[in-house]
Amino acid sequence: MSKIAVVLSGCGVYDGAEIHEAVCTLLALHRAGHEAVCLAPDREQLHVIDHLKGEEMEERRNVLTEAARIARGKISDIAEADPGAVDAVMLPGGFGAAKNLCTFAVEGPDCSVDPGVQNYLTKAKELAKPIAALCIAPALLAKVFGSEVQLTIGNDGDTAAAIEALGAVHVNKPIGEIVVDEANRIVTSPCYMYDATISEIADSAEKVVAVLTEWLS
Amino acid sequence: MSKIAVVLSGCGVYDGAEIHEAVCTLLALHRAGHEAVCLAPDREQLHVIDHLKGEEMEERRNVLTEAARIARGKISDIAEADPGAVDAVMLPGGFGAAKNLCTFAVEGPDCSVDPGVQNYLTKAKELAKPIAALCIAPALLAKVFGSEVQLTIGNDGDTAAAIEALGAVHVNKPIGEIVVDEANRIVTSPCYMYDATISEIADSAEKVVAVLTEWLS
Repeated sequence: MSKIAVVLSGCGVYDGAEIHEAVCTLLALHRAGHEAVCLAPDREQLHVIDHLKGEEMEERRNVLTEAARIARGKISDIAEADPGAVDAVMLPGGFGAAKNLCTFAVEGPDCSVDPGVQNYLTKAKELAKPIAALCIAPALLAKVFGSEVQLTIGNDGDTAAAIEALGAVHVNKPIGEIVVDEANRIVTSPCYMYDATISEIADSAEKVVAVLTEWLS
Repeated sequence: MSKIAVVLSGCGVYDGAEIHEAVCTLLALHRAGHEAVCLAPDREQLHVIDHLKGEEMEERRNVLTEAARIARGKISDIAEADPGAVDAVMLPGGFGAAKNLCTFAVEGPDCSVDPGVQNYLTKAKELAKPIAALCIAPALLAKVFGSEVQLTIGNDGDTAAAIEALGAVHVNKPIGEIVVDEANRIVTSPCYMYDATISEIADSAEKVVAVLTEWLS
């Protein structure tokens, strides 16, 4: 049984981790025989969105505390986690990946990355750990790894251009397909950046996990 | 394609809908060819639990607003919903089912039920709509329907006794099994009231949805 870090960014598509993508990730990992190790940064969310109205709320929430809802309490601060303790890393999407793990959603290529997340991903790659990312999360990998990586967020032109501005290679892909960067052992897949169904999200998570599994076998 | 109401009770196992059960419900329904129609009561949560520390927070959150995180914004107030517009009803578990939909978690058999939830479930049964419930949610059905129903929450003795005090018939079942009340077209399954895995939750949701699908075909 391999251990796979799952990096969460809150709990809810508009201000945190996309919940369907996160749960489909945990399910796909478990069904493939892996153990998920949930991590998130212990920091305030960029903001809190009322998911019913689509409006900002006058509230403050902590990324790690809210991500613990998805992880049923079993989650640790990524700043204190050791990538050497896992065999691979997987990042579901949701705006939280681009608002809380980094600020790509508001600052594009000039975004900053949470120091704990930056350190964890950098060390994971130095240790040659495979990395998987769904939806918008590949933009974070483009920021951290720059020209080293090939990836997809789907076919959104502006986002793809911002990713290419970071020196990464963006490959347009429809929902249901993946991009496998064999050299860097990075696998990515579009998700809810398309108007996708939950079955398509689960299928994408399974496809990405199958690549991780192959790399780890 | 059948329409199935999914009644949510917030977003997070300790004070709302259990997220894995909710997402596995939505996934199982979609993979079986059904359309999920998410509903929740527009009321304040009983309380807010910090899922990292397991402690109550000094915050107030609304059940419908938080449930919208799981539903990606596509959710309606159950008090204004018509059970005649759907073909069946499904309730994931989580403490929210016993704290926000009714107060079974704090008051046991003497609990009260949210009026909108009570009305919706009562009308759904009058219209002979099949009803599925996971985890602790069957306790709500026991309160609403009393001696008419046969169901399971697993094998927790105290909870089973409280359900039987309501006149319902509780059947002990291990994780992975279901109770089918053919006369009332109610199907129930244990979930995280056991120390279950996410794959077992997904399997249970699929088994319950398979019964709904058979009843609707």
